[in-house]
Order: sequence, then structure tokens, then C-alpha cells
Amino acid sequence: MKLGTVSVGGAQRVAVAADDLGERAVLLYAGLTLADLIEDWAAAWPSVERATTDGAGKAVPASELTWLPPVPRPGKVICVALNNSANADRIMSGPDSPATFNKPATSLLGHGQPIRLKKEFGRVHPEPELAVVIGTGGTDIDRDDAMSHVFGYTIINDLTSPTMRAQDTFHYRAIHPAKDGSEGIEYVDTWVTYPGRYKGSDGFGPIGPWIATADEIPDPHALTVTCVHQGRVITEDSTQNLMHKVADVVSYLSGYQTLEPGDIIAMGTALKASASGGSAVQNVNLTELGGPIEVTISGIGTLSNPVEMR
Amino acid sequence: MKLGTVSVGGAQRVAVAADDLGERAVLLYAGLTLADLIEDWAAAWPSVERATTDGAGKAVPASELTWLPPVPRPGKVICVALNNSANADRIMSGPDSPATFNKPATSLLGHGQPIRLKKEFGRVHPEPELAVVIGTGGTDIDRDDAMSHVFGYTIINDLTSPTMRAQDTFHYRAIHPAKDGSEGIEYVDTWVTYPGRYKGSDGFGPIGPWIATADEIPDPHALTVTCVHQGRVITEDSTQNLMHKVADVVSYLSGYQTLEPGDIIAMGTALKASASGGSAVQNVNLTELGGPIEVTISGIGTLSNPVEMR
Repeated sequence: MKLGTVSVGGAQRVAVAADDLGERAVLLYAGLTLADLIEDWAAAWPSVERATTDGAGKAVPASELTWLPPVPRPGKVICVALNNSANADRIMSGPDSPATFNKPATSLLGHGQPIRLKKEFGRVHPEPELAVVIGTGGTDIDRDDAMSHVFGYTIINDLTSPTMRAQDTFHYRAIHPAKDGSEGIEYVDTWVTYPGRYKGSDGFGPIGPWIATADEIPDPHALTVTCVHQGRVITEDSTQNLMHKVADVVSYLSGYQTLEPGDIIAMGTALKASASGGSAVQNVNLTELGGPIEVTISGIGTLSNPVEMR
Repeated sequence: MKLGTVSVGGAQRVAVAADDLGERAVLLYAGLTLADLIEDWAAAWPSVERATTDGAGKAVPASELTWLPPVPRPGKVICVALNNSANADRIMSGPDSPATFNKPATSLLGHGQPIRLKKEFGRVHPEPELAVVIGTGGTDIDRDDAMSHVFGYTIINDLTSPTMRAQDTFHYRAIHPAKDGSEGIEYVDTWVTYPGRYKGSDGFGPIGPWIATADEIPDPHALTVTCVHQGRVITEDSTQNLMHKVADVVSYLSGYQTLEPGDIIAMGTALKASASGGSAVQNVNLTELGGPIEVTISGIGTLSNPVEMR
């Protein structure tokens, strides 16, 4: 099943895909949210399926809908950094386990909604990514049990400003306790980068339109990820190139940040340039070039957003 | 007025301080949340005041209550980094504007609740901070108008693990567009740090117990901040030492992350060691030394948490 959230007259409505490609959608009754459904999916899905079958005649073209993020206000959005095997030879030092940052819910944007950039954001490039949607929450989830906590999968475009990243990096002397075990201190030369602006600005998280439920995606590491800018294919990659796999990431992260229903985990950027003459995503400066910018993941759908300056 | 949230029989209840120090509290009726009150405070406050006066006889000792974060699930928690003038001589390079990261709501913890640490978190130290609670939300808020968006002030202990910070730092060659303007790329030697674990782990955000409404704090930059570990005064600082002021921070951040009612902005760490023999907060390794760890801000209250290993 494919599920999303749309806005009708200013109110949220759950949309269910009426065909495999999600080109037509049935809207469920007002007042129900996708967050509610995810919280108690085992109980909810038979009635969702029935409503979809009964309402199939009323299906509307997905292209005519106003899309919101599938879960409009997730408790958190965790993004895994540098998780593509194509990064390996660029990393001089770094952790063997997933390193992450959190994007605020206000950075999320629905399919078709304009990414509104400011000149002072500097360079802003797309990062096409598979995103996991958590179903049942948990802390310290076993790796063997991790996949049972996955409600489904969606698409996120983890917009990034390397300009603001460079601006918000400090080179400083961090205070550490003295090595002699006294109460004295010593200074350690440290670089530290703060992602609030360069990863968390408004519009930096286009997401959706659909969540494909986990039963539709038997292997989340066998999906093709395509990024298209202004009609030109930039990136053609596969989720098999993600170094840390979904089960490992869900299990590992739950040991630090308790996972809750509707939480989003962005798995890391698809990077491989298209064989037919693609470019690095880092060359696609949306501030200068504008949109639309489009991400397609096989079995899930296509997320497309125009770009405006504000 | 001082407002907080407590748990009674597993349900949230809004608590209102019945005296200046917040030692006794009146509980408002079940079903009402502090997030609701903040959303429409102008309409709500007369009835809150009346309920408090009418219910004064039923006030209970604050020490007997089970405290939750004052806003249990804020839309976001933005933390300003390295914002104390005591840092200035340690910074070799860095931005002139506030650099920030986001803590997830799952990292927040109520007053009195145990901070539950794991051995693998490594060193974990306290960072006592003034936190702003947003009332009316907004985007691109004028500096002159910024203070009208402040609902009130609370206390946050921005727990930090320098061990996980070092682990989650990459030294890598970032991909940048070629300088010649072609579609080629070049590599730029870059350090980048991801704060998901070292700032966002469960229990890394003790907050509360009270929000003092803005009318009680005429100058948020004239408050003393005291940090006490196991009965010993570690830090005695003043919010006058915050380099970026509340009005500047609210205005600046709203240009990047749309602010919403109930959002929290942690203003940066109070650092100055106590004149009577305090230590650096970085010396207070809670993983090794345990708690309790206590932060007091004049006019707001005292946030105290025990520490447990799990």
C-alpha cells in the first residue's frame, strides 16, 4: 500500500494510492492523520484497504493534489551522514558506525511545493535519499528485530548548503579535563560544525509524496535512486551502495535516540553520477540554477519540487 | 507567572506556581496542555490566573510532583553553540552569527527525572543554559519585534559527550564544484562533526521545571546561572556574558528555521567557574561521577536531576 498526506481546504487528509504507480489517489475521511494510522497500523490497515476499494471510483489524479510531507510533523528526522560506499575513498578519518544529525520538522516540504531559497543561503545542492519511516517505536532495538519496526519507505531530498556549512564551522581550542586526573583543564585543537542552518533551513527537506509500506519493499537495498534536474538525469545509484544497512541503522540509532512511530531516518545520499553524462549533485546549485529537482526511487515514486527565490 | 507540566496517573497536567519560588503548585484541569495555552496565551491567561487564585488552597508541594519537560514535545529545540564571551579567546576561526544545532524532543527530560547514561556514551558533562520559549511563531522576525515572540524562559542542561563528538567527526575531502565553472569537481579538505549522538541522546536535555513568563524577566541578560554538582558549586555566571542576545538570536534564527509556538532556543553555556573554587563543567564527567546535577537561574528556578547508569 502507498500512503501520503494532502491538504484539502487547509485540513490534512490521508491519501491512499489507487494504482501501483500512485498516479491516482483515494482520500480517507477528514480528521484521520497518517500519524494516527501508523500508531496502530495492525488495527487500521483492513479498514484503510476497504475504504480504498470502496472509494476506488472516487480516485483523483495525484497531480491535482496539494501534497504535505507524508507525516507532516514527525517527532524527529534523523539523517545518516556520508553513508555511500562512493565516499569511502574520500574519508581520511571518521567513525565506523552511523554518524547522524537531526533536521527539524519545519524544514520538511511536500511534493510539488516550492523550495524557497534566499540568496544568503549560498550554494544549495540536492541529496537524493531513501528514508525509513518508523512504525513501532523502541529503545535498544535488536538488529534481528529491527525490520519489524519499519513501517515503510519514502523519498527525501536532504538539501544541503556547503556555503553555510563552511560558515558555521569553528576551529577552536576545546576544554578537556587535564590528563593528570587533577581538576585542571587542557585545550585540545578541535574542528566542529553545526548543521542548524546548512541542513535545517526551511524547505531543506522535500519529502514524499508516498510512503510505500514495508511489505511492498522486500529488499530496501535493491532500489534504484535517480535524481533529475531540469529534465536532465544527474544521478543513477542503488541503495545497495549504502554502507550501513537499514537494520543496522535502526538498531544502532535506537540505542541513542528512542525511536517513535512516524520518526524518519534518511539513509544517506545517492551519489553515483549518471552513466549518460550526469554531474555530481554538488554541481547542481539550486540557488543559481533553479528547479525543478526530482528524485525517483523504484517502488516508491517520484518527488519533484520547483525552486523559487524569496 | 510560572508554568510547568507534570504527570499525574500517566496524563499531562499543567502546573502553575502558587508562590514566587515555585515551591508549591496548583494543577489545572486534565486535558489542557501547556502547548495549548502558549498557542493562545492572550486569551488563556486570565482564566489561568483565576484558576490559580481559586485553587490556591489546593496547592501541593512542587517536590512531590513528577515533572515532565514544560513543553513535553516541542516542535524543535534549537541550541546556540559557543555563545559565551569566555569562549572568545579559544576560537581561532568561526562565524560572527549564531551557529546552531537541533536536539530531538526525545532527548528532553523533566526536573527530578534520572539521567540514564550508558558506559559507551563516554564522558558526559553538563552545560547550564538559559532557554527561550517561543510564544507567537514567525519567519524573518524583525529584531525590534523579536522580544514580543518570547513566551518565557526556562532552564536547560545541554548535556554533551565530547567522547561521542570526537567519534562522530569526519576528516574528509568534500566534493565542491570546480572553480573554473565547468561541470567538473574538486576536493576540499574538510572537518565535519555530526551532533546526533553527542548532543541528542536520550536524557541529554533535562529542562524545567518552570517556564517564567516573559513579564517576570524584564532583562534576560541580567540573570545569574549557577551549576551545582553533588552539592558543590561548579559554575557561577551571568547571562550578560552571552555574546548573541535573545532578540538577535530570535530574529536571526527565524530567517532560517520558521519558529513555532512552544519551540525552545537554548542560548549557550554558562561557563565561568565559581570564585569559591569551582571547576570547569568539562571536568564534571557524569558517567564517572554520577549526580545529582543542578542548574539554578535567578527568577526562574532550579533544575535538578539524579544520574543512573543503564
